[in-house]
Amino acid sequence: MTKKLLAEFIGTFWLVLGGCGSAVLAAGVADVGIGWLGVSLAFGLTVLTMAFAVGHISGGHFNPAVSLGLMIAGRFDAKDLIPYWVAQVIGATAAAVVLYIIVSGGAGFTGVGGFASNGYGEASPQGYGLTAALVTEVVMTAMFLIIILGATSAGAPSGFAPIAIGLGLVLIHLISIPVTNTSVNPARSTGVALFADGPALAQLWLFWLAPLAGAALGALIWKVLSPED
Amino acid sequence: MTKKLLAEFIGTFWLVLGGCGSAVLAAGVADVGIGWLGVSLAFGLTVLTMAFAVGHISGGHFNPAVSLGLMIAGRFDAKDLIPYWVAQVIGATAAAVVLYIIVSGGAGFTGVGGFASNGYGEASPQGYGLTAALVTEVVMTAMFLIIILGATSAGAPSGFAPIAIGLGLVLIHLISIPVTNTSVNPARSTGVALFADGPALAQLWLFWLAPLAGAALGALIWKVLSPED
Amino acid sequence: MTKKLLAEFIGTFWLVLGGCGSAVLAAGVADVGIGWLGVSLAFGLTVLTMAFAVGHISGGHFNPAVSLGLMIAGRFDAKDLIPYWVAQVIGATAAAVVLYIIVSGGAGFTGVGGFASNGYGEASPQGYGLTAALVTEVVMTAMFLIIILGATSAGAPSGFAPIAIGLGLVLIHLISIPVTNTSVNPARSTGVALFADGPALAQLWLFWLAPLAGAALGALIWKVLSPED
Amino acid sequence: MTKKLLAEFIGTFWLVLGGCGSAVLAAGVADVGIGWLGVSLAFGLTVLTMAFAVGHISGGHFNPAVSLGLMIAGRFDAKDLIPYWVAQVIGATAAAVVLYIIVSGGAGFTGVGGFASNGYGEASPQGYGLTAALVTEVVMTAMFLIIILGATSAGAPSGFAPIAIGLGLVLIHLISIPVTNTSVNPARSTGVALFADGPALAQLWLFWLAPLAGAALGALIWKVLSPED
Repeated sequence: MTKKLLAEFIGTFWLVLGGCGSAVLAAGVADVGIGWLGVSLAFGLTVLTMAFAVGHISGGHFNPAVSLGLMIAGRFDAKDLIPYWVAQVIGATAAAVVLYIIVSGGAGFTGVGGFASNGYGEASPQGYGLTAALVTEVVMTAMFLIIILGATSAGAPSGFAPIAIGLGLVLIHLISIPVTNTSVNPARSTGVALFADGPALAQLWLFWLAPLAGAALGALIWKVLSPED
Repeated sequence: MTKKLLAEFIGTFWLVLGGCGSAVLAAGVADVGIGWLGVSLAFGLTVLTMAFAVGHISGGHFNPAVSLGLMIAGRFDAKDLIPYWVAQVIGATAAAVVLYIIVSGGAGFTGVGGFASNGYGEASPQGYGLTAALVTEVVMTAMFLIIILGATSAGAPSGFAPIAIGLGLVLIHLISIPVTNTSVNPARSTGVALFADGPALAQLWLFWLAPLAGAALGALIWKVLSPED
Repeated sequence: MTKKLLAEFIGTFWLVLGGCGSAVLAAGVADVGIGWLGVSLAFGLTVLTMAFAVGHISGGHFNPAVSLGLMIAGRFDAKDLIPYWVAQVIGATAAAVVLYIIVSGGAGFTGVGGFASNGYGEASPQGYGLTAALVTEVVMTAMFLIIILGATSAGAPSGFAPIAIGLGLVLIHLISIPVTNTSVNPARSTGVALFADGPALAQLWLFWLAPLAGAALGALIWKVLSPED
Repeated sequence: MTKKLLAEFIGTFWLVLGGCGSAVLAAGVADVGIGWLGVSLAFGLTVLTMAFAVGHISGGHFNPAVSLGLMIAGRFDAKDLIPYWVAQVIGATAAAVVLYIIVSGGAGFTGVGGFASNGYGEASPQGYGLTAALVTEVVMTAMFLIIILGATSAGAPSGFAPIAIGLGLVLIHLISIPVTNTSVNPARSTGVALFADGPALAQLWLFWLAPLAGAALGALIWKVLSPED
């Protein structure tokens, strides 16, 4: 069990350091910056790489909503849920610490600003309100779970699941960064909210509620859809 | 059969929500927007992810033209064609509804505009006329069917077809967004045309006719080309 | 043999229509254009998709330099070389015709300009001279052949070669578009040179000479390197 | 052994020519340049393509830090370490020579400038200081080794390691180009430092020290994490 939790810690650490790190460090640089396309790619590749590297140790969740959805779908033992959540949140927070150290070493550093945190209303990258944010996070997380459950099911080609899941997370970011800066992952939201300026901590409830609800919805849809269940 | 139709509904829902959603929400944002490259990637990744997730349930068409082409090539039963088309169009329309809800929650929302619909003439992103649009959609859909039929044939490496097909759709968008905003999929065109401002509904006939004709052409070329037929 | 030549025709048609088409239609559009990154991706994905689709029919060369290199490496029968070259050049030319039809249907069309042709000196995208162009094309094609020969060798993981080769062509374009607009493929250069304004036809000799020399070099390096030969 | 060293030479040659080459030639061109996103992709694809092509010959390190980490993890024989390092540094230097020949053939060439070298302080792309550079290079290289060791372990899906490792290097560049221009590879840093203007040679010690320390750290973490060791 310790190795599983260490794998979840490392995977979630990488997700936040890579995804939020690329956003904070590289997205908005003039002329050569990577933009939201690069940030989307970075988030997805954290999961693709870690699912290949340590997925066979812990299952490769790196996300409390994924752990919940897998539990509801009957793929993950309920007694491991809270330990996984704790490892994921600690990993995300550790990444935020490392990212803070790097960012604060930049020329003319005056503060982390939004620090790639998630938000709605004035904290949404393009000013989307609470309802749009809620719908977006629920639907995106539900679809993410369907991708995960489907790509790892017995009928899908073997070995390809990390590609499907990682590129699925790329896609989710390509759609929804403008709305909420894309969470679909309460640990990712929590890690950076602890350091961000602005309303990130006050809005954090939504980025636990909506991804968890979406993951449950996705798991239920999969149970209807699945040929093997 | 119900599970197959549900899989086609979900896959086509995801194609339109992801592809058209990324176009409407994220493409044109200043400095960090994802541009046509990001939109191309999003369309292709919807198919890649869903082909891995539910392809083993329904075959993973998500597109009336693909269903027709597979039928002509002898890979799909003619009696299932209309049910598949219905599920695909309903899925695309449901995605347009969800996208409308999200978009209308944006700051200063005043209307959906083109809503990522397809068009020619003044409705073409770069003003291409009817002939260019027709040629583009026929040729792109024909090549898409050759990719699909070839990558899923017995001679191709097993398990990789969702990658070939999904990245094939990325490529088709990289080429043809400027001409027609890229359809190659009548369901995708129909879903957003129902909500779009402008001539999308009036021009919708082309985005049924040309992809269906192209798919038939691609299937016929494959039958000549195929070593196993 | 006819099916092999038809496969080479279609694959090379797709390479030129997709790669040069994305360059002509979508690269330079303001704000949302796909840029050289998108063009690089398009070229590579034409080969990735066609290698999966028809690679098991013809070997998936789509390039006279590749056919030559494979022949030198002992993987391709010398008597098929000229028929393959003819099919490839006809396919590339057919793509240029289709692209011309589409482009000429654009608003305010006044000519195709460079038409994504290759060049050096004033015809180089960034003004690189003959020596830089020659070195670039020889080295890039040599490395391309090493990728092709290595990824299809018995020691490499089975089934992945289209991914390695297609993404290798993406990479080659990311490096060398500024120098020569990237050929590494005499058929690709020939197809568009027939229609391009400017010195493309007069400079075409280089884009046969350098890729063929580079392919021979790559094949010889592989023969030294290869554990099985 | 000679074939192994030749494979390492070629792979590291390709890494520097492709990664640094795309940065120098194509990154900053106005409007259509590939930016840091394109450069990140190029670096990763050099490793992806060469790992498929020659990985079965030499193991596909192309990086002194990777060789060290694999040795510490018990996957690579200590007596081969120095020969591998020599082959890698010579390959990187040869690539810098070829790149110099190409670059100096450009219109209005007046010098190579930074030549895609690595740096901190005023030599950092965005002015990050020594501590930020050190932390970034150590953490990035440690994570790179975890990806490599995990994706090539017995529990991971077979054949996919070049994809996981190559895309892992894409990701590392998406995060860390702004900080140090991304090394994680002492050979890559050395090759271009020999030709670069500015403090690259004087700062080169950091880009040996930090990647080697990070690789050792990653190998140790993997030994704790690994189920098979």
